[in-house]
Amino acid sequence: MSYTLLPLKNTIADVEGFYCAGVKAGLKEDDYDVGFIRSDAPCDVAALFTQNRFQAAPIKHFQRRSINQSDFLLVNSKNANAMTGDQGIADIEEILQTLPFPALNPFMSSTGVIGVRLPKEKIIAAVQTFDLNAKDDASFARSIMTTDTFEKKIGFEVRLEDGTSFKIAGVAKGAGMINPQLATMLCFIATDAAIPRADMRELLAKNAEHSFNAISVDGDTSTNDSVFLLANGRSGAYEKEAFDFALAKIMHELALLIVKDGEGAKKLVAFEVKGARNDQEAKRAAKALTNSLLVKTALFGEDPNWGRIASTIGASGVECDETSLVIAFENVVVYDKGRILFDEEQEEKAHQIMKKDEFRIICDLGIGEGRFTAYGCDLGYEYVKINAEYRT
Amino acid sequence: MSYTLLPLKNTIADVEGFYCAGVKAGLKEDDYDVGFIRSDAPCDVAALFTQNRFQAAPIKHFQRRSINQSDFLLVNSKNANAMTGDQGIADIEEILQTLPFPALNPFMSSTGVIGVRLPKEKIIAAVQTFDLNAKDDASFARSIMTTDTFEKKIGFEVRLEDGTSFKIAGVAKGAGMINPQLATMLCFIATDAAIPRADMRELLAKNAEHSFNAISVDGDTSTNDSVFLLANGRSGAYEKEAFDFALAKIMHELALLIVKDGEGAKKLVAFEVKGARNDQEAKRAAKALTNSLLVKTALFGEDPNWGRIASTIGASGVECDETSLVIAFENVVVYDKGRILFDEEQEEKAHQIMKKDEFRIICDLGIGEGRFTAYGCDLGYEYVKINAEYRT
Repeated sequence: MSYTLLPLKNTIADVEGFYCAGVKAGLKEDDYDVGFIRSDAPCDVAALFTQNRFQAAPIKHFQRRSINQSDFLLVNSKNANAMTGDQGIADIEEILQTLPFPALNPFMSSTGVIGVRLPKEKIIAAVQTFDLNAKDDASFARSIMTTDTFEKKIGFEVRLEDGTSFKIAGVAKGAGMINPQLATMLCFIATDAAIPRADMRELLAKNAEHSFNAISVDGDTSTNDSVFLLANGRSGAYEKEAFDFALAKIMHELALLIVKDGEGAKKLVAFEVKGARNDQEAKRAAKALTNSLLVKTALFGEDPNWGRIASTIGASGVECDETSLVIAFENVVVYDKGRILFDEEQEEKAHQIMKKDEFRIICDLGIGEGRFTAYGCDLGYEYVKINAEYRT
Repeated sequence: MSYTLLPLKNTIADVEGFYCAGVKAGLKEDDYDVGFIRSDAPCDVAALFTQNRFQAAPIKHFQRRSINQSDFLLVNSKNANAMTGDQGIADIEEILQTLPFPALNPFMSSTGVIGVRLPKEKIIAAVQTFDLNAKDDASFARSIMTTDTFEKKIGFEVRLEDGTSFKIAGVAKGAGMINPQLATMLCFIATDAAIPRADMRELLAKNAEHSFNAISVDGDTSTNDSVFLLANGRSGAYEKEAFDFALAKIMHELALLIVKDGEGAKKLVAFEVKGARNDQEAKRAAKALTNSLLVKTALFGEDPNWGRIASTIGASGVECDETSLVIAFENVVVYDKGRILFDEEQEEKAHQIMKKDEFRIICDLGIGEGRFTAYGCDLGYEYVKINAEYRT
């Protein structure tokens, strides 16, 4: 089976039958903060949610209603509607009842401060101003941003061998409280592919493992992490392998964009752990590396401090041994099965690699066939500044 | 049984038969960096070590030699002698063979940069200059400091009901890479109590749980964490309950001093989790709070951001429920079983508590009887500065 991916110009807005936009409701000082995604045909909906025990009200609302078909999704930033109890769910019901148009199982998705009731009136007022025929990716993407510094969106037209084609596109937000467990921060993926519901769930879960579940900004798992896949079938086209490939690419790219835009982060680092006893242990070690403060500050200082990398692997609880471990900054091996290859020349080479905006650190445990690549970022003054001053 | 604790002026130096001092060997620019503890009678030795898989060479040396009696302990800072393989152990053997005096099973303890061979010649030269009759706690305590900003030592004379007495004193170092698992950074406890060897192991392990195992500076578990208890029996006195009480107090105080002196830390915060399903889950939640970057930066910003506290508990994987959780900053309840009590007045009260150097945050999960108090600190610009610039 062959297929071709062509980038979309406007992502979700370009997908057949989908409309989206953001408006300024006054939750932020002067920026888009409430938005919507609408489909002119009913969508099948699949979702992945945070493993945080305190799931936010919009997640509980979605689950209590057992939504698997919908044509309208309302979003807001600045307020997570989390730890707000039954009142938080009642607020959602009340807001959705004021929609000035008929909608099939409308639902909400929120991000922002935890533990504050939704500013209902502002959101209700904003909803009345929606242009339901808008196809405005940019203002929609901005409407879900909190400390994000840039919009995160990507989409493709997938042309199949038989001449048919479908489109698939996603928009995400991230920035802080990023250490997804089985799901991630907000991510909305829309497609007009004629995808069976079973495939939606299967492919969404499968591709989360190496995208959103492989990233960490700060090791904190949010109350609101959600990934939604909406499929309205409008193209009539579908082919599982091609869809899987496109979905994987979209989820992976959006996940990397979230790390790149990690609060205060300047570097995107792939921690490639291989030779572990199994994939699970490789993941454990790789995730530990993305979450180690000492590794993250060394990345910020561009210091090839491989001792901190070794120590973090040793502390992660995975099977490992000094005499089989190899650590390399891309192609520069600094520790090789008990031999320290860290003279001034090697150190300078490793330092030059760390000066780049993106690079790989490879740790071969030399024990088995397990492998996992996790994506992390540096932690510098800016992270402290953002999180000591901004209430999320 | 009653007993009285009287503070010692000079800690280890005051314990009968113990001698200690530090010298300047040139590992640091101009400060104490090599030191010793000596006893004029053979000591029973009990030890707890890091659970990091890559244990440092001095730990491996100690274990391979199965040391349970000794009268001489050599320490150094600036170099951890970790990830140095068999060479690291051979270096220790070579150094200990040059001691210019007879010693019973001498051993080493090191802290500092990981992955660099020990500067053997400097240490050997320094050892020749030791004044074996010195009783100098201060220079010894400084000789194990890395990024620590103050010495950590404490000791007591314990007077028993029968008129006999013994002394017990400890010196520790901490600062960074602090998230001990079953052991901690370097800690040396000396006593002249006539304590049976079985009690030494039992009481050391028992008291680690609520002292060193209850603290975290940065969530990173070191390769070198070690707690040693040396007992030379010189006082002839011993009573288990009194010894346990004094040991617990010393370990707890030293652990808190380590958190207080956490890299860049300005605040010591006790996270008291109660009402958990069991003690283990309480510990899991409490430790998660000490390790959450978002909680730590909120402490730094003196922001009573209880939403981050709730989210961290929810993400920690313990049994919990929004409708039974209570969160308080000392006596100021901000969230009470589903009710958000966070008006401007409460927020200001909580903010005032957070301005203090030391305070408690109480989280009652309202489910069972499990409880655990973990101790953490804030994370600010200084932590980033220290760890982006200093190679440990």
